Amino acid sequence: MSKVVQVSVDQFYFHYPAGATIVTSYANGKQNAMAVAWHTAVSREPPYYAVAISPKRYTHRLIMESGEFVVNFMPGDKAELVAAVAGCSGRDIDKFAAFGIRSSPGSQVRAPVLTDALAAYECRVTGRLPCGDHDLFTGSVVAVQYEPSAYAEGLLLELDGREPILYMGADYYARARGRTFLERKAPVPRETARGS
Amino acid sequence: MSKVVQVSVDQFYFHYPAGATIVTSYANGKQNAMAVAWHTAVSREPPYYAVAISPKRYTHRLIMESGEFVVNFMPGDKAELVAAVAGCSGRDIDKFAAFGIRSSPGSQVRAPVLTDALAAYECRVTGRLPCGDHDLFTGSVVAVQYEPSAYAEGLLLELDGREPILYMGADYYARARGRTFLERKAPVPRETARGS
Repeated sequence: MSKVVQVSVDQFYFHYPAGATIVTSYANGKQNAMAVAWHTAVSREPPYYAVAISPKRYTHRLIMESGEFVVNFMPGDKAELVAAVAGCSGRDIDKFAAFGIRSSPGSQVRAPVLTDALAAYECRVTGRLPCGDHDLFTGSVVAVQYEPSAYAEGLLLELDGREPILYMGADYYARARGRTFLERKAPVPRETARGS
Repeated sequence: MSKVVQVSVDQFYFHYPAGATIVTSYANGKQNAMAVAWHTAVSREPPYYAVAISPKRYTHRLIMESGEFVVNFMPGDKAELVAAVAGCSGRDIDKFAAFGIRSSPGSQVRAPVLTDALAAYECRVTGRLPCGDHDLFTGSVVAVQYEPSAYAEGLLLELDGREPILYMGADYYARARGRTFLERKAPVPRETARGS
């Protein structure tokens, strides 16, 4: 394959899908829900999770004030809710009321856990790394909530029916489908020339 | 839904899929390829990308020595390569030779860009945030390479045939499928009670 090379990376696109989550926050009587595709696990033991949030966002202010956030992993049939949440700001509208979003306060944080989430990570902020036009918040995962019917033995996510939502960039989404097991063992080395 | 709540989060599972990438590195004549699911975009302008790498990994050492890494986004038909790369360490084996991985040096960094990648981000390290059992490396995206036939207008990833690989935890993988467009506009507010 002959690749296009962009050295002046003045804009940044989604070349690969990312899980479309809803990050919730709460501070001083205000709560918010924001669609976030820029997130990742960071540490297993102890568990840490990170989210990248622009300082322009209302969620950024609520996280700064409370030191807490919740990452909600949504099932496929809530893709339209993710898109709706992405289309407005909590500064202007109470998204929970506007979209009928059901939630409960977290068990360890006050930020809400969405009733329809497959799983949710309750996080307490441990660090904030300003990086370009976003801040990377790292959070200690102080509680995990999950819907038991969505997970098979070993906490393996079932993909039938409620396949996770993936964000593809712009206003496009997809689903995670076709689970397969691939053994990790190293195959027998092949007699192939080393790449250039 | 009635959720299971784990307050003692002594172990950490994949409750949601993450794109299965191969992170490549190069330092002092040694190169390596590592399967990485813990990664995210962080900033759009200027572009930054982050990867979480355990200090135990050989890749960590190569990134520390070179200050560079490349994130390679792989097509679905290379899922077995991702699993193979995940099953061994570059300390013990030259994975490029062992698995016949074709590559070229990056245009701006010496870490290799995989020939079969749908896209690759060449990154120069700008920060390292130790966080639990991993280090979060942030990198300035100094070049983007992509396979033009894999992307439609607006750099939207085509999902027919080469659907991206998702890591589901343990040794399970899935694919991104069924792209749909969902308009971002906020729906008309409903008369629904606010969640608890």
